[in-house]
Amino acid sequence: MDGQQIRITFQPSGRSVFVLPGTKIIEATARAGLTINTPCGGAGTCGKCHVKITAGVKEPSEADKNVFNEEQLQDGWRLACQTSIQNETVAYIPESSRLINQHKIVIESQTEEPTEVLPSVHKVYVELTAPTMEDNSADLLRLEEAIGTFKTDLNLLRNLPKLLHQYDYKGTAVLTDHHLIDFEPGDTTNQCYGIAFDIGTTTMVGSLVNLCDGNELAITSQMNPQVSFGDDVLSRIEHSSSCSRCLDELSHSVKTSIVEMIDQLCEQIDINREHIYEAAFAGNTTMEHLLCGIDPAPLGAVPFVPAHARGLILNANELGIPINHRGKAYIFPLIGGFVGGDTVAGVLATNLSGQQGPVLMIDIGTNGEIVLAKDGQLWAASTAAGPAFEGARITYGMRATTGAIEKIVFDDDIRYSVIGNVPAVGICGSALIDLAAEMLKSGMITSTGQLLGPNQLPGQLPKAISQRIYKNADGQVEFLISQADQGRKDLRVVLTQRDIRELQLAVGAIRAGVKIMLKKAGIEAKDINQVLIAGGFGSFIRRTNAQIIGLLPTEIDHEKINYVGNASLAGAKWALLSSNARRRAEELARKTKHLELSLDTNFQMEFADAMIFP
Amino acid sequence: MDGQQIRITFQPSGRSVFVLPGTKIIEATARAGLTINTPCGGAGTCGKCHVKITAGVKEPSEADKNVFNEEQLQDGWRLACQTSIQNETVAYIPESSRLINQHKIVIESQTEEPTEVLPSVHKVYVELTAPTMEDNSADLLRLEEAIGTFKTDLNLLRNLPKLLHQYDYKGTAVLTDHHLIDFEPGDTTNQCYGIAFDIGTTTMVGSLVNLCDGNELAITSQMNPQVSFGDDVLSRIEHSSSCSRCLDELSHSVKTSIVEMIDQLCEQIDINREHIYEAAFAGNTTMEHLLCGIDPAPLGAVPFVPAHARGLILNANELGIPINHRGKAYIFPLIGGFVGGDTVAGVLATNLSGQQGPVLMIDIGTNGEIVLAKDGQLWAASTAAGPAFEGARITYGMRATTGAIEKIVFDDDIRYSVIGNVPAVGICGSALIDLAAEMLKSGMITSTGQLLGPNQLPGQLPKAISQRIYKNADGQVEFLISQADQGRKDLRVVLTQRDIRELQLAVGAIRAGVKIMLKKAGIEAKDINQVLIAGGFGSFIRRTNAQIIGLLPTEIDHEKINYVGNASLAGAKWALLSSNARRRAEELARKTKHLELSLDTNFQMEFADAMIFP
Repeated sequence: MDGQQIRITFQPSGRSVFVLPGTKIIEATARAGLTINTPCGGAGTCGKCHVKITAGVKEPSEADKNVFNEEQLQDGWRLACQTSIQNETVAYIPESSRLINQHKIVIESQTEEPTEVLPSVHKVYVELTAPTMEDNSADLLRLEEAIGTFKTDLNLLRNLPKLLHQYDYKGTAVLTDHHLIDFEPGDTTNQCYGIAFDIGTTTMVGSLVNLCDGNELAITSQMNPQVSFGDDVLSRIEHSSSCSRCLDELSHSVKTSIVEMIDQLCEQIDINREHIYEAAFAGNTTMEHLLCGIDPAPLGAVPFVPAHARGLILNANELGIPINHRGKAYIFPLIGGFVGGDTVAGVLATNLSGQQGPVLMIDIGTNGEIVLAKDGQLWAASTAAGPAFEGARITYGMRATTGAIEKIVFDDDIRYSVIGNVPAVGICGSALIDLAAEMLKSGMITSTGQLLGPNQLPGQLPKAISQRIYKNADGQVEFLISQADQGRKDLRVVLTQRDIRELQLAVGAIRAGVKIMLKKAGIEAKDINQVLIAGGFGSFIRRTNAQIIGLLPTEIDHEKINYVGNASLAGAKWALLSSNARRRAEELARKTKHLELSLDTNFQMEFADAMIFP
Repeated sequence: MDGQQIRITFQPSGRSVFVLPGTKIIEATARAGLTINTPCGGAGTCGKCHVKITAGVKEPSEADKNVFNEEQLQDGWRLACQTSIQNETVAYIPESSRLINQHKIVIESQTEEPTEVLPSVHKVYVELTAPTMEDNSADLLRLEEAIGTFKTDLNLLRNLPKLLHQYDYKGTAVLTDHHLIDFEPGDTTNQCYGIAFDIGTTTMVGSLVNLCDGNELAITSQMNPQVSFGDDVLSRIEHSSSCSRCLDELSHSVKTSIVEMIDQLCEQIDINREHIYEAAFAGNTTMEHLLCGIDPAPLGAVPFVPAHARGLILNANELGIPINHRGKAYIFPLIGGFVGGDTVAGVLATNLSGQQGPVLMIDIGTNGEIVLAKDGQLWAASTAAGPAFEGARITYGMRATTGAIEKIVFDDDIRYSVIGNVPAVGICGSALIDLAAEMLKSGMITSTGQLLGPNQLPGQLPKAISQRIYKNADGQVEFLISQADQGRKDLRVVLTQRDIRELQLAVGAIRAGVKIMLKKAGIEAKDINQVLIAGGFGSFIRRTNAQIIGLLPTEIDHEKINYVGNASLAGAKWALLSSNARRRAEELARKTKHLELSLDTNFQMEFADAMIFP
């Protein structure tokens, strides 16, 4: 049943992924880590997600015909949101369709803001006149005349006269916010890079950006090595206090991975680390504290107070981040103890506060952060949704890596796709949602979450599916998702009653959070103009399935639900490219009202209610 | 002949010095390192230098009677500039007479500026409300609400939450220019200190200042230990390049001494180093480079380019200065390769640019820096005057330390005073000037500097004096200044023809410099409204004697020549107490025209002329 997958290759990146037949191209791009414009939320109306099919061409859809002319259709132009993959395909994604080069997530009805590339780092090539007896002003003054007043550190001050002399008073000054951080021989103004990092509890993504034009040049990701100390932030906080070296150990562990990612990025496009002058980090409050080596213990106990909340500009060196030896690290501002810089970055990138109607953003990572924007007001909350969607506490749960079942559809039997096109070893969050939705639809799970036994199943179920329900040795009902071809028991993937309870808890947490937030804002779910799904995980979720299980509000037309991809990373890139964006991030973090859900007297009640499937 | 000295003790400091009978009290205060107001230049007219004689009272002078009423005279109040010391004396110097507490040198006709104590360091005691679930904003935000926005370093950021918690959210925030540098338990707002340093080529002086009220609390001085590497800046520069560790060695050597001085100052008034938050350093360009560990080699070769010219604010820690671990070091701005931060500090403290008529300041240290102010314009130059006045290159020359003859007068024989009241072992600069002046007056030296032989001496000379001229074994004429009581040859102090030539070179350098500077400014010596003598050394010079040998312009009434003491130190203190003073120092340094005397085509001619005694 698996193994039916088809390869699709994207140009110019050359990345390819395997998908089930019928998968939309836009879904496949998300799988490949490529983010495409979908202002209309994939409704086929905006025509922004155009791609050129160069192999595996199929008939254009009606939507394609509305958007493209005859010649374009002949050339293979299609809308990625309307085109399903049926056979091996090669698709070219033009620059204009990629989100990454726009420095912001473009979503429908958002205020248009000019794309700006005004990073705090800039380089100036200077040719100074060498000093003479008639003009023997200080070396630094001489440089100032060319590049304006600046400050510098003692170390560079000590070296600068030598460098100026050695380079014959010609070279490239590197400045960040009026601080001279380097002076390089020759004209290196076109070698100016930064790295944006999304430091997730589970996954970390790094994006190397050209600070001259804002283009993303390389991207890489790694699992956060701290997972070996615990799945969620609370267990990391706990670990950090468990011994005197534990905080250092956690901090060191994440940095080791960051160093590797920097190396990988530099290797990909063959640049020198010294030409990376800034790194921007967006992470949740605990991740940012650990990255900075700040004790997160106060985040783990009432009243959950973070050390800092404003954005920080630190010396990368001091932080142990091996970019230019006088490079800077920008750490995103925080909203509160459990709503961190990743959320701020997401709010920044989606221009959430600039939206007209009420917009809800849900970032389904290891924590489920929800943000509501209404007429420029912002509310944010964090829910302990995470572990289930990331595979933890689910019997065969696993993260979205090789071997994970990541999509499930029912027809006459179960159909699924496995990441890496290998035999399935587990199930990740997106497939868990699919499965629960399919089972709810077909009546195999009741609205209270009961997994019906072999004798309780509705009659109209396809036989192949109903046969998958059985009682295990303990008398508990289970659903057999997959079994390796050889029929080996040790290669089975199964869904249990307990797994459904875990899913209910996770869904309930987010759903209750959303409800309370809507109440605070004085609106109802139906008033929501748009729901944005953010996070790498979010991109893989099937919207209607998420609505069926209640993870996303059912009152909303599924076309109003849009994927914004890794908005935290996009925000981090934006902060790298624009000092104004940093100021805006600071403002957003300060103006966002932090809702402590646990403080709300209705939370437990809402939570209990929300665990019932719609 | 020596040994006739009298002790005078100053209250409240308790310092005492030995002086020749007839020495003015104001001269003795300078010897004791205490600086007194002399707006009128010691003419007895301004009444600002009042002291109270509590032992050794003598008859009031006419000037005293004009200034003080009967009761005050009875109480012992006298003008320090009019009172000669005749017997063992104790004098009380009131705060109001001391220059040090006014943060600037008050000189006649200067623009009055308000005394301000607005240091860049300030402390704020805060009592924050502890966080609760209803108010759980970040620790730093909580502090910001009380003290305004600030930046801080990673290290303090890591510790602050712990400190706040430990101190029950009460304590004293220490800020410098919106940077939080410490958070201390309890209310320590009244414990806020800084140290001003004058880093001379030969002598270093440190003054511990209370940053709350601007009062000087302790003062100390040491010889610059770099003297073991050479007497003047050029030999230090040369040494710094002579081996790979030599720069470090020089830098380390001066810092070792600074550390000792800090310890001494802290001991004197029993305070903790951690409560010293800033140190301000004024030194010549080479000294500042060496202090900062900046290679001074470019200062030793054409075109004599300094590394920096603007004032620097560095981390004291990074510089190796053991004050508060996040304290700052302010390094004075420089004018050019040989006119440094000490001159800027002097110009600042004397408000030179605010003077109406042309004012000339001469700082006779190891270098002779001269500054001319005219209608807000400033010119500065450095002359290689130094070594002779500091004792170098003079046969029996020595610095003004124990055993040095420091003052000479002729009557029927030579009279002199020796520092420390011990047998004379050499002669220091001030006595060299006295001696040359007396010998010129009595015709023993011709205007071309020839020391007349025993047979060429004018007839009216006292016999005791003419007998001191003799020819040595090589047939060279010499003058016997002193010989120990026992008549031992190895305890003789002698002046040779070569010594007079060295003096001529030193005097000629300053004199030629002044001439060229006056020409640049389009004025003549007689136009000068005032001459200020700065520098510890300068305070000991007898004005008229300095005029006789041509060191000071002869065209000027000697009452227009005023001592301003260690103006560099006063300027450094001022910079410690006022951020505005720093800005002014920066402006002064930038607006001062640096004259490279060696570039002036007339310099050699003027120099040759200037070597002829007037």
